[in-house]
Amino acid sequence: MPAQLRLQTEGIDAKTEILPLVKKAYLEMPKPTLRSLQPDLERLLSALSRGGAGQVAVSTQVLSRLPEVLRRSGWKATATVWSDQEILDVEEGDTSKSVYGFAVDIGTTKVACYLVSLLTGETVAVSSMINPQVQHGEDIIERLTYAMKGESERAELTRSIRKGISRLVAECCSKSEVNPDHIYEATVVGNTAMHHMLLGIAPNYLAVSPYVPAVKQPLNVQANELDIEINPHAKIHFLPLIAGFVGSDAVADILATGMYREKDMCLLLDIGTNTEIVLGNQQRILACSCASGPAFEGAHIKDGMKASCGAIESCRIDPATLKISFRTVDGTAPRGLCGSGIVDAVAQMLGARLIDENGTMLADAPYVRSSDSGQREFLIVRTSDGYPRDIAVTQKDIREVQLAKGAVQTGISVLMKTVRIEPRELRHIYLAGAFGTCISPASAKKIGMIPEVSLSIIRKVGNAAGTGARMALISSKARQLCENISSKAQYVELAAHKDFRSTFMRSLSFPSQ
Amino acid sequence: MPAQLRLQTEGIDAKTEILPLVKKAYLEMPKPTLRSLQPDLERLLSALSRGGAGQVAVSTQVLSRLPEVLRRSGWKATATVWSDQEILDVEEGDTSKSVYGFAVDIGTTKVACYLVSLLTGETVAVSSMINPQVQHGEDIIERLTYAMKGESERAELTRSIRKGISRLVAECCSKSEVNPDHIYEATVVGNTAMHHMLLGIAPNYLAVSPYVPAVKQPLNVQANELDIEINPHAKIHFLPLIAGFVGSDAVADILATGMYREKDMCLLLDIGTNTEIVLGNQQRILACSCASGPAFEGAHIKDGMKASCGAIESCRIDPATLKISFRTVDGTAPRGLCGSGIVDAVAQMLGARLIDENGTMLADAPYVRSSDSGQREFLIVRTSDGYPRDIAVTQKDIREVQLAKGAVQTGISVLMKTVRIEPRELRHIYLAGAFGTCISPASAKKIGMIPEVSLSIIRKVGNAAGTGARMALISSKARQLCENISSKAQYVELAAHKDFRSTFMRSLSFPSQ
Repeated sequence: MPAQLRLQTEGIDAKTEILPLVKKAYLEMPKPTLRSLQPDLERLLSALSRGGAGQVAVSTQVLSRLPEVLRRSGWKATATVWSDQEILDVEEGDTSKSVYGFAVDIGTTKVACYLVSLLTGETVAVSSMINPQVQHGEDIIERLTYAMKGESERAELTRSIRKGISRLVAECCSKSEVNPDHIYEATVVGNTAMHHMLLGIAPNYLAVSPYVPAVKQPLNVQANELDIEINPHAKIHFLPLIAGFVGSDAVADILATGMYREKDMCLLLDIGTNTEIVLGNQQRILACSCASGPAFEGAHIKDGMKASCGAIESCRIDPATLKISFRTVDGTAPRGLCGSGIVDAVAQMLGARLIDENGTMLADAPYVRSSDSGQREFLIVRTSDGYPRDIAVTQKDIREVQLAKGAVQTGISVLMKTVRIEPRELRHIYLAGAFGTCISPASAKKIGMIPEVSLSIIRKVGNAAGTGARMALISSKARQLCENISSKAQYVELAAHKDFRSTFMRSLSFPSQ
Repeated sequence: MPAQLRLQTEGIDAKTEILPLVKKAYLEMPKPTLRSLQPDLERLLSALSRGGAGQVAVSTQVLSRLPEVLRRSGWKATATVWSDQEILDVEEGDTSKSVYGFAVDIGTTKVACYLVSLLTGETVAVSSMINPQVQHGEDIIERLTYAMKGESERAELTRSIRKGISRLVAECCSKSEVNPDHIYEATVVGNTAMHHMLLGIAPNYLAVSPYVPAVKQPLNVQANELDIEINPHAKIHFLPLIAGFVGSDAVADILATGMYREKDMCLLLDIGTNTEIVLGNQQRILACSCASGPAFEGAHIKDGMKASCGAIESCRIDPATLKISFRTVDGTAPRGLCGSGIVDAVAQMLGARLIDENGTMLADAPYVRSSDSGQREFLIVRTSDGYPRDIAVTQKDIREVQLAKGAVQTGISVLMKTVRIEPRELRHIYLAGAFGTCISPASAKKIGMIPEVSLSIIRKVGNAAGTGARMALISSKARQLCENISSKAQYVELAAHKDFRSTFMRSLSFPSQ
């Protein structure tokens, strides 16, 4: 029985059998003589106990080096075989203990990478970076717009992400002293636009109705075709997608959470500028995507900011005194509100009846003032309390949150209506992604973004997509599961749903408190 | 039932079912809509009735163009599929009638190419050239020596043959007005050194005992990997080899002659600087190679020449008058003797008792004189008879022929001893290659190169290797046969055979007349 690896990360405890597609074998071969005239490749295949030679592929580059490698090593060499069907490399001597894989999670904003031993399944180095494409657009739509300018812009997006990944490879290899040539496989997850751009596929049509991707099935591409600087014959495995706006990151999320094998329905939210929503169990999987906008990332909010130094990530407002208690990301003085802080603030303002169900801010409450632009704002952090600066939540900020949470709520609602279940029937709600990790489930529920469920069923699963990518890297079974998930998953196009508009309008309101 | 093609060339009448690996299909697809969200590739595969999408590969280059091609063509496109497992190309509109293959026979001296319709199996253009590698050596050993000088010399040999093939492609395409991008597959046959050099494999070890090749199994390589200018994703199929000195040309010879399915034993000779000898039937196939030297190509012979303008290709000497009658290649005045002319001359001199069984020229016969260098020579064409120049056969020329025919005779003898058969049990003797086409079977038998058989069993089969390459191009069944032939064929290393030296010594003599 193959060894098992427990990938315990954040809310996930995923057991994965170690069944990598890449295997290395150290071989000692008898030298050819006039009485033993087997050709070099066939001699190698015999030593690999692969008599059915015709079935094993080998690149001309590996083949062209083979005679020299075998003779220089005195017929003691290590062969690297992918999926029992292709020889990726042959090296002199015994290098069989050095066999690695690389898992890549390409977010629109952040790229996270994991260098993994394919012998033990263990992650030996981790690295991440801001997606280098951000210079050409903060969100997917901006980047698609840039790509549509022309061939060279499109090529630039492809080149920058490929270079970025190679840089992360180099970082991980230098941290762990691993030879990049000993990375024989990589798995890639990401949303559909990232997937297409890394492959060099024009993502233009993802921006145009009906938003169909060029391909959805899993792909294996040779590393040197993509200029990813690992072993040139390594395979880059692209996990399958679900649809134009539900990518392989969602497939990896589903894999990592294990919701695909639950008897009861589970709900998964991967919240960001786009939020992917998956509702499913062992019978059925539904997925949709909604444009939840930038509010959850602290953008388009007056005092909003990224989850960095001085950002309020959680807060409580005393309903009686309207005094605030809060925590900033790094414990320093507050400079603004990041996504989870805004959600908390709005939930607390609702609780304190500073805003009504329609999101209208009360005019005559304490600390509510009119800003320079004439709109109402609630002063949540005040210099009068000794803080270095005022931080306010404006009426417009509330509207942004309403639009964002309304979109998510609509998606959830449409999916749940489609399978005809009530919130109380849900077994788990998984919150994935950076924002999902920070957000307060209670606040999310209070503003109506999450349905009326017991808080005990909510699980924060962190970067579940990265965990899924690592599971697919070390296990052929996990890849098969991903294919099953992708085939089974039914994409629901919200815009095409008959109840979409009415549901969305209703979802803009906050639940009665 | 698939259509059949009769390839009637020279002594071959080979029926081949038309079962090409490459197929083109014109497809009209429904446009995607919000209610039909199938991705582009999956839509194409559905139209191809290839539901099991996961099994069909497609290059990233084809994939990256796919969204544009499908939309620009209004969802009417032609897909080219190789071996039901890889999409080689997708084009706008209906190009399904334009599907071609290219068969290449790389000889040490000459490269012959055939452009073939994969719909009808017919050859639409033929082209040939002197192997551009000749500038680096006339025969294989010279070229291996050049290759062993260093990396850049080796690369130059590879580059020159690749460029040469691309030139022949261009010639054939221009003759027949075929778009080179519509050539989706090529088959290549040649001796092992040519095979290795085209692939870019160092041929160095072919020159060193025990002369094992790097690989023997059939290979499929993408055209752009070899810089062969046909469709960049086309497959170059290298037919399997037999051994270091018995290449895929011999496999193609065996395929084309059909000897592999004969009940009785047949003998095949592909005569050149190296002569490949195959003895076999449906039960068993034996092959060997012998260095028959350059005499059969008119080299190392005093008045020898290539089979070009003014070369005597056949002759008769009147035993009484010692007058000659002859035919030159192009009917012009005689300038020298090509290979078949030399064999005829020696056979006729034997018949006229101008040389004895040991090959010694009589001293006192008419027209035998001493040359400037002091050795005897027989004046076969004389200015005194009104010819523009004297043409002589020297004692040294006789020795060259003895060495050459002795090598061939030894090979035949060793193979026949191995399977324990007598000449009269042979069903056919096939003479392949340019020299095999010119040679007089009676003369070849007279000098002992061919065993004592009835002349009626001798078949001249011309460029059987080229015919075999074309058969493998149009038929997957023929390729399977080649694999069977290559696996079944037993290579006999003459130098390692216990009787080799004694047999060779005996074979130097001529048969008693």
